[in-house]
Amino acid sequence: MDLAGENALAPYLPDFGPGSVWLVGAGPGDPGLLSLLALHALQRADAIVHDALVDPRIVGLARPGASVEYAGKRGGRPSPKQRDISARLVDLAKEGKRVLRLKGGDPFVFGRGAEEALALVAAGVPFRIVPGITAGIGGLAYAGIPPTSRDINTAVTFVTGHNSEGVVPDGLDWESLAKGSPVLILYMAVKHLGGIAKRLIAAGRPPGQPVAIVSKATTAEQRVLETVLGEAAAAAEANAIETPAIVVIGDVVRLRAGLDWLGALAGRVLVAEPIPGKQRQHAS
Amino acid sequence: MDLAGENALAPYLPDFGPGSVWLVGAGPGDPGLLSLLALHALQRADAIVHDALVDPRIVGLARPGASVEYAGKRGGRPSPKQRDISARLVDLAKEGKRVLRLKGGDPFVFGRGAEEALALVAAGVPFRIVPGITAGIGGLAYAGIPPTSRDINTAVTFVTGHNSEGVVPDGLDWESLAKGSPVLILYMAVKHLGGIAKRLIAAGRPPGQPVAIVSKATTAEQRVLETVLGEAAAAAEANAIETPAIVVIGDVVRLRAGLDWLGALAGRVLVAEPIPGKQRQHAS
Repeated sequence: MDLAGENALAPYLPDFGPGSVWLVGAGPGDPGLLSLLALHALQRADAIVHDALVDPRIVGLARPGASVEYAGKRGGRPSPKQRDISARLVDLAKEGKRVLRLKGGDPFVFGRGAEEALALVAAGVPFRIVPGITAGIGGLAYAGIPPTSRDINTAVTFVTGHNSEGVVPDGLDWESLAKGSPVLILYMAVKHLGGIAKRLIAAGRPPGQPVAIVSKATTAEQRVLETVLGEAAAAAEANAIETPAIVVIGDVVRLRAGLDWLGALAGRVLVAEPIPGKQRQHAS
Repeated sequence: MDLAGENALAPYLPDFGPGSVWLVGAGPGDPGLLSLLALHALQRADAIVHDALVDPRIVGLARPGASVEYAGKRGGRPSPKQRDISARLVDLAKEGKRVLRLKGGDPFVFGRGAEEALALVAAGVPFRIVPGITAGIGGLAYAGIPPTSRDINTAVTFVTGHNSEGVVPDGLDWESLAKGSPVLILYMAVKHLGGIAKRLIAAGRPPGQPVAIVSKATTAEQRVLETVLGEAAAAAEANAIETPAIVVIGDVVRLRAGLDWLGALAGRVLVAEPIPGKQRQHAS
């Protein structure tokens, strides 16, 4: 297949020049969520440098003959330093390659894409950013949970659950986040969920507030655990939740009873009106 | 072109059954940001119902012979009621059509997709959600502004700038948002920017904090206005900013000096190190 060979799409698929780097978001996992630009880049790249969160099915769409390198970072395992990854991108580009830096989700949402791009700028390497669907939105959609719903919230906050040292980010004002944002969507937070929940509850979030943990979203191994804030950490442990996982805290989780379209494909009966009694019971 | 006719992609492009509705996010505008699933739906749908924020170039990718209906909602103009749009989707599905409900950005981010899906559930119409790239992420990427950057923020909040009555949402705790979220990304907020900025400044956000307003992001008419919080509303008016527009408030805006890749394509010289002096000067 050659997307750019098709008349209708050709104007929207820019030339991938030798010696340049495209920083591309691969989305949460499902290859169907790739953008046309991302697929075009896979079809054109000479060298692909991907991280651990990029689905193997997506890497499998690379042009035959392209070199494929893993430069992933996952908590707890030895992994290349960010500086080394950026240097590698620069080296490949200086060799005249079309370099595709493929990152899970969106490159600019907790993805260190900004750092990598600034390293390219410093080295004088031309680049393009291709945004992707972030797991906190697209992954939740596959669990039937909307980040926003008009009657529930007009704001939603995305938080990374650990900082660069792998601990709960102390620089965050959790009390204000608890008060200001009716829906919190946490990335990479399962390990620190107990500590985070404790802070949110101390700041006034009800322990009975609904929580969902979506593991390996949009893949065949997707699992969704519904729980409540006060029990979320224990439930995650008891259910041996695997990472990557997204945690969503807030009343939008209730809408899953109606919106779990993927469950419905497997036979689940959807309920259009999420249980109002429970909603009152847990209201903050 | 027929994506599903290609062996490599076919397993990832599910059948679009007659009598069902796909609620699909079309992304911020650039057709290259469409997902493979969205393009597949455009190639298969019998009836397309789109809103005003869907780029005409994307609607133009519809299968010849598909019926195309506009069911947009834009502030200040007469527009169909949400109830009528949902009823129309149900009617088309009951006629046995493959119905593509195409929404700008992501259907579950300030898009009323949850309401439409629940109406389908109530009517017993099967559906699928196809997430899209939301303008607050993908649109900003085309302005060279990352929603997150490791040294600046570990949280980012998305807010809609008006509620269903078209006024600044009073239900929001702006003081907590101002304190808790280092970066705020506002949708549909230009009209109320003065009032919002006033509340944020009253809660302690510095009037000199950088702000960018990205109008018609990812389209040929994209414009980016860089300003500061205390002057943002006046600047938007003086520059006759057109909607749709995304407003981003926070120090990530400074990174645009290095990350404006689209500007670089047009000749702008990028600076890898955003001015540190200014960063200190405006720190909150």
